[in-house]
Formats: sequence, structure tokens, C-alpha cells
Amino acid sequence: MEHGGDLLSYRNYYEGELIDFSSNINPLGPPEDLFAEIKKGFDNISRYPDIKYRELKSSIAEYLKCNSENVVVGNGAIDLINNFILLFSRTIIFVPSFSEYEKRGLINGKETVSLRYRDDFTIDLDELEKNVKSQDLVILGNPNNPTGLRIDEKTLVALYEIVNKKDGFLLLDEAFYEFCPEDYDSIEIFKDYSFKKVGIIRAATKFFALPGIRLGYGCVSEDMVKKYERVEIPWSVNALADIAGKTIFKDKSYIKKSKEYMEKERSFMLNELSKIEGIKPFTTHANFILVKLLKWDEEYVFDFFAKRGVIIRRCSNFKGLDSSFIRVAVKDRDSNIRLIDIFKELEQIS
Amino acid sequence: MEHGGDLLSYRNYYEGELIDFSSNINPLGPPEDLFAEIKKGFDNISRYPDIKYRELKSSIAEYLKCNSENVVVGNGAIDLINNFILLFSRTIIFVPSFSEYEKRGLINGKETVSLRYRDDFTIDLDELEKNVKSQDLVILGNPNNPTGLRIDEKTLVALYEIVNKKDGFLLLDEAFYEFCPEDYDSIEIFKDYSFKKVGIIRAATKFFALPGIRLGYGCVSEDMVKKYERVEIPWSVNALADIAGKTIFKDKSYIKKSKEYMEKERSFMLNELSKIEGIKPFTTHANFILVKLLKWDEEYVFDFFAKRGVIIRRCSNFKGLDSSFIRVAVKDRDSNIRLIDIFKELEQIS
Repeated sequence: MEHGGDLLSYRNYYEGELIDFSSNINPLGPPEDLFAEIKKGFDNISRYPDIKYRELKSSIAEYLKCNSENVVVGNGAIDLINNFILLFSRTIIFVPSFSEYEKRGLINGKETVSLRYRDDFTIDLDELEKNVKSQDLVILGNPNNPTGLRIDEKTLVALYEIVNKKDGFLLLDEAFYEFCPEDYDSIEIFKDYSFKKVGIIRAATKFFALPGIRLGYGCVSEDMVKKYERVEIPWSVNALADIAGKTIFKDKSYIKKSKEYMEKERSFMLNELSKIEGIKPFTTHANFILVKLLKWDEEYVFDFFAKRGVIIRRCSNFKGLDSSFIRVAVKDRDSNIRLIDIFKELEQIS
Repeated sequence: MEHGGDLLSYRNYYEGELIDFSSNINPLGPPEDLFAEIKKGFDNISRYPDIKYRELKSSIAEYLKCNSENVVVGNGAIDLINNFILLFSRTIIFVPSFSEYEKRGLINGKETVSLRYRDDFTIDLDELEKNVKSQDLVILGNPNNPTGLRIDEKTLVALYEIVNKKDGFLLLDEAFYEFCPEDYDSIEIFKDYSFKKVGIIRAATKFFALPGIRLGYGCVSEDMVKKYERVEIPWSVNALADIAGKTIFKDKSYIKKSKEYMEKERSFMLNELSKIEGIKPFTTHANFILVKLLKWDEEYVFDFFAKRGVIIRRCSNFKGLDSSFIRVAVKDRDSNIRLIDIFKELEQIS
């Protein structure tokens, strides 16, 4: 299963340094203070991390505005998703979405039902209601990868009511949460339901530009925390990731700057891409854009960009998409312009 | 399930700093160059690690004297054990042993058969032969935790032949390998069998004193590597652990010094403990010692040591042991003397 970010596999395409538009990381890079903090706590590598991650959970809780007792942690968001899958008898997903939802279900021997998003990639609540049953885990990306779409607040509450009524469990993968417009916070919403039959997963990976750190976390009911802790692998978060999680969330100016930067670049990119003939960019709430290719297939376009030093994400290995889709990240202005310029070159080819 | 190393839970026992005899880490601490290397590669945290861990695997292969193509990696040895369990239909373990073998089997919905070591903690090959069948995963600690015993070479080959003949798979957990006397190297042995139906897991955790880094690795056939890679969680090794794995194995003088240090302290400890009345220390090839309590139970002894600033490992939660066993690490000379002195105090109590 291909993922983005595997630049080492494409070294032969181009002489210079490749620009990675295939993985979706905050272009501002990680918070500046992080290295100083890791340096201070470096000796932690020679001790086991706190097996209960008490301080880490308290830092996450403060950031998420929930209680420490509601927090679970893992070796990146995928580790959390994997652990939740272990706790339920069946997994329900909508496609196209992050390939690991289905993969982890199958690997863990769980029946996995793939439903389809509508053509505009919104969710069909009737389809959900028809399929979900007791003890099902429904995993939804919010915003969803690779479509970039966020579920609107009203629909989110409605679909939660359906899952709850049917005695299933709704797991929202919100790994790209902070990039979204600030219209609602699902943790705020589901706090009022005491996180009954719902969990929200987030991660340091994307927004804090720390894909190498592997820090995912989630917010669930205290009862579900206990169940989760029974299946998780002990010490799943590395000691330096533990330090990162006690540092980065405090950097409010970094968080503000990153949100503003992304808002601006996303508009710029969507606007520029919409002017290119032969492609159709989809609206996005995240830091990446799904693009429908109207004239070429993904292999041709991948090659075209790679030879010019830019790696994009082919999308045919997303169930529910085909070889007429690619995904590109929203990066810094210079890189974005480079990407758009290559699209303009491509446009000339009929 | 209790593990060693959870000092935060015992802060109330003692005013000063607690000495941790409950986890089994090289008392010399991590290799000295490591921080400089991590500092140099710190920017790696803002990129995904190589999803194929090409350089890391090549560094591990050089250290293990096997081919890169035979190497698998994971987020600590437990992550590897978990992935191997997923690949087989049933897990066979001998007890007492590391509690995670059984726990991961059960969590992953696999039938798990617990056989017993003999009273001297050696393995009964007839018992193995009677129980193992096709598609079974047999997990053995070598040396075994908490007993400290290493399987002798002849027995190891004999038991491999049994597992192989029955079409099972032998997984050796050798997380404590480097602490052992250098009588044989199981990777050397099973290279001659092309690692057919056998895998060897090792880790940076114990010998390189890096429990916070979470770096485990294994050596298996190329065919098994492919199967393993289909079930592993992507990017399971953190970027800084990745750097550690490219650095530490090159430090031959650290490795030599650590082995010599442990040899000396282990003899010292075994000799001193054997003079204490009311306890029976078991022979060990590792950096920890299982101790049978002849006059007290684990809770009494745990309390006695904790109040004096030393945390030992109670063993009744190891299946196959009861509350008359404790485990202590072999540490630096000063700490070891402190432990022995407390045993001498305990000896006075009838």
C-alpha cells in the first residue's frame, strides 16, 4: 500500500532536491522551542517513559480542553485507530478515505464494510443508518483524506445520533483538525454527550510538522479509556515524543501563525488551480487538495511532475477513486508557485 | 498488568530518589555519541521516516551479521512480537515468561497455550513436541524473563527441529542477548537454516540502555519479512530512534565495556546474594536475577525495600510464579551494594 512522503523511492527522477507534495505537513516546520526542550530532557531516553503518560496526558487535555482522564495516546494516529479496531467486532468506513482504516481492520481479522461517499464526497446518512449495527466501529476522517472535506456541524451531530441509536461507536480521525476553518470543535460538541459512543483522534504529525515524532492522541469517555488501555502496547510513545507533547501545545503564537498561513495559502492554491484547464480541484478544509484529472491519468502526471522535481500523490490506490485523481499538499508560497507553474506547463499538453 | 520501571507510582514510599531495580537496563547508560548524532539529525522529525527504513536496516544487518533483506523493525520488541502473533493462528508460550506474550495473543483474538517450564526453568522438549502443531507460533525468551536462563545451544537446535518438523514457527525473544556469555549466536546458527520457520528478535532497549527510544528489530527469512511488512503499522519507528539505530551499533568499545561490566557485576551479585539467608537466587545469563523468598512474601519484601529507596519487581503477576518470587536488576556497583545491604537488613528479620 503506497503512502505519501516516500521520496527515497523517487530519487532517480530528478537531479536536484525533490519537493514533496505527496505528504501533508505544515510548511512552517515544527515549533522552534522544541529542540531546546528535547535537549533538556534528553536523558529520558535511558529510562522507560511513564507507562501511564501522566504529564503528557495532562498537557494534551489542557490543549484539547478536556480532562486528563479522557485522553489516550499512541505511536501516531494509526496506532490509535488500530487499537480502537481491536475493541469492536466490525469496522465501517466510507471511501475514498485513508487506506489504513480498511487495512488495519483486515489485518486484525475484523469484518470491514466499505460504503461510498456521494459523488461530491459528502456522507449519505441513510446509507449509514441502513448499515450500522450494534458493536460496529464507524471510522470517518474529519476532514477526510484524500478529499479534504470536513463534515458540517449539523450533519456530524445527526450522524452521531444514528450511530449512538444503533449502539455503534463513532471514531473521528481528526489528524488535520487544526488546519480547518474554526467553525466548530468536535471535542466541545461531544463533551456535552460525555463522549458516549464517540472518540476523537488527533495528532502532532500534520499541524505541528512532526511526522518523525509519531505522536497521536485521542479524547474518549473514561470508560473507553480503560478499555483502550487494556489493548494498547505498553510505552507506545517514545520518550522524546513524550517531551514534544509536553511542549508544542503551549506555543500559541505558532498555532495562530500556522492557521493564518494555511488559510491564505489554501485560498491562493484553490484559486490558482481553478484557473488551470484540464483539471478540477475539489474544495478542501485541510492542507491538501484532491484534483480530478480531465485529460491525463495519474501516471502521466506523476511522471511529468517528478521529472520537474515535484512529487505528487497518485490516488488510484484509494478505494473509491481511480487513476484520474491526484492529491497535492498546500505548502509554502514558493513551492506552491512551482507546483502551479508545472500545472501551467501541463496545461499546454493536449 | 504490572511492568517494571513504573517509579512514578511509588513516589510516596521514600523521601529521596528511588533506585530502580525493577527494570533491567544497562547500568552504563546509552552510548555517549548518541546525543551528538541526534542533534545533527534533529531536522528529521519534520519528515516522515523512510517508510522502508533502508539505512536503519542496513545498519542493523551489519551489526547482526545478516542481510538487510532479513531485517524487520518495530516500536520496541513488543511491537514485533505483536506483529508476529498476527501472522499465525495460535500462540504457544512457556511460563513463567514476559507477560506480553500471552497478553498480545489474547488481545489479537488468538488462542494462546501456556505450557510450563520445568521446576529449574529449563524447557521440556517432550511437552513442546506434544503440543505444537502446524501454524503455531512458539515464543521463547532467550534468555527468558524473569528467570534469566538461556537455552543451551544443543537444546535450542533440538527444539527448533521439533517446531520445524511440526510446521510451526519458532520466535526467539532475545531482547537481553548481549548481556549473555558469548557461547553462541542464534543468528549465526539459524543463518545456516536460511531462517526457515524461525525468527530472532532483539532490541536497543536493554543493552544500549534506551528504553525511551523504542527500537526493536528482528532477523527472519526474506519470505517472512514480506509477510511481516504486510501487517506492521507504517512508520512504527520514530525518526530519532531511527538515528539511534544508525549510530549505537558502531560503538564497539561501548559494547565491549558493557559486556565486561555486566559479567563482573552479575558474578558479584550472584555471589553476594547466595550468602544471604532466607532467599534463593537463581542462576542467570541476563542482567537480572530471579530470587525465591523462603521466609517472606513479595509484598512484605517490596515494602521493605521501597521504604529504603529501592524498587524491586514483584513476580506473582508472572503466570507460573507466585508471591514468593521477586526479580532484581544487576546495576552499577554502588547500587548493587545498596541492594545487598538491604537484603542483609532483611535477613535479620525472622
